[in-house]
Amino acid sequence: MEKKIITISRQFGSGGRKIGEKLSRLLDVPYYDNEIISRAAKESGFAEAAFENAEKKAANSFLYSIAMGLNTFGVQDIGFTGLSIDDRIFLAQSKIIRQVADEGPCVIVGRCSDYVLRDRQDVVNIFICASLDFRIERAIEEYKIPREKAAETILKNDKRRANYYNYHSDDKWGNVNNYHLSLRSDFGGIEHTAKIIYKFLTDAE
Amino acid sequence: MEKKIITISRQFGSGGRKIGEKLSRLLDVPYYDNEIISRAAKESGFAEAAFENAEKKAANSFLYSIAMGLNTFGVQDIGFTGLSIDDRIFLAQSKIIRQVADEGPCVIVGRCSDYVLRDRQDVVNIFICASLDFRIERAIEEYKIPREKAAETILKNDKRRANYYNYHSDDKWGNVNNYHLSLRSDFGGIEHTAKIIYKFLTDAE
Repeated sequence: MEKKIITISRQFGSGGRKIGEKLSRLLDVPYYDNEIISRAAKESGFAEAAFENAEKKAANSFLYSIAMGLNTFGVQDIGFTGLSIDDRIFLAQSKIIRQVADEGPCVIVGRCSDYVLRDRQDVVNIFICASLDFRIERAIEEYKIPREKAAETILKNDKRRANYYNYHSDDKWGNVNNYHLSLRSDFGGIEHTAKIIYKFLTDAE
Repeated sequence: MEKKIITISRQFGSGGRKIGEKLSRLLDVPYYDNEIISRAAKESGFAEAAFENAEKKAANSFLYSIAMGLNTFGVQDIGFTGLSIDDRIFLAQSKIIRQVADEGPCVIVGRCSDYVLRDRQDVVNIFICASLDFRIERAIEEYKIPREKAAETILKNDKRRANYYNYHSDDKWGNVNNYHLSLRSDFGGIEHTAKIIYKFLTDAE
């Protein structure tokens, strides 16, 4: 198979980021996650923090707009007049996603990259999910979330990701038809999941 | 990995049946599809044809009940009084599914088997989907459906499968969270898809 652009969407705590990193090493292609934020921030003049918060805040964009104030990030500079802060951040991020995809095969985690790149023929979309129990253990270990808050944090973050995707796309986050491959990472673990995605991509004719 | 019970749910024309057969040969375990119908029919005293039609007719169970007439299949014999024909057929099928699962590792295609076996810990649920174009070509080749009717037939059958599942379970057909692995069979073809499922199952610790 020719090398492709791989997008990974993932439930919170399922290990999607780690799986994406491992996959990019197996495929020997660049990996994008926070890199996208940094590049988008530099290009558009938005503060990096604003991009980091965009996905979290999309769940409540009206309150967010009020709370942030329309001029906090110098919105006049970015050139999307008449749009909300969220929409401007999304457009700036989408521009960067298209740019790294134009540069060649890579792995991109999150940020609606499957939707942003939907018109390309060389994109493979992956979804990673896992049982709540597995994600609770990972949330405690990886993100140092207290056990009593873990389940609530996970479900809230999933809801935010779904809202962010559903708001910016004309589809639904986690719709099985949108992914070439969806895997439960708790079945065989992080390493196994990355290996199976690699096999799926490279064993095809 | 210890051998498991594998259920396969599939969009119409995605090749789920062929993939299930290939997988059962790779795993060296029994394969159930029409076998379930036959066994259920023999045990319950229903005519085999009634079972074959159950999935198709669930979309319209009220009209179906009227059209079939309540005594056509000797419903008194089966022992589920106060239930519709559809519900009785579903219960008889579910009994057979639980029975073959009790007998040991196997591959079961369709008939809400993932839902029927939801309380077992040794079940792995797979979902097979594919692009409409791929399914149209397969529908023409495999089922001899005329090209001009292929898309409509596929979408109608998918709707019937979804209705059947959603009616009999408390969940939604094609909900990504319910499957350990979901694959687009058009990505690498039927053979490739069966191989990847096999790897997913056997490479896990």
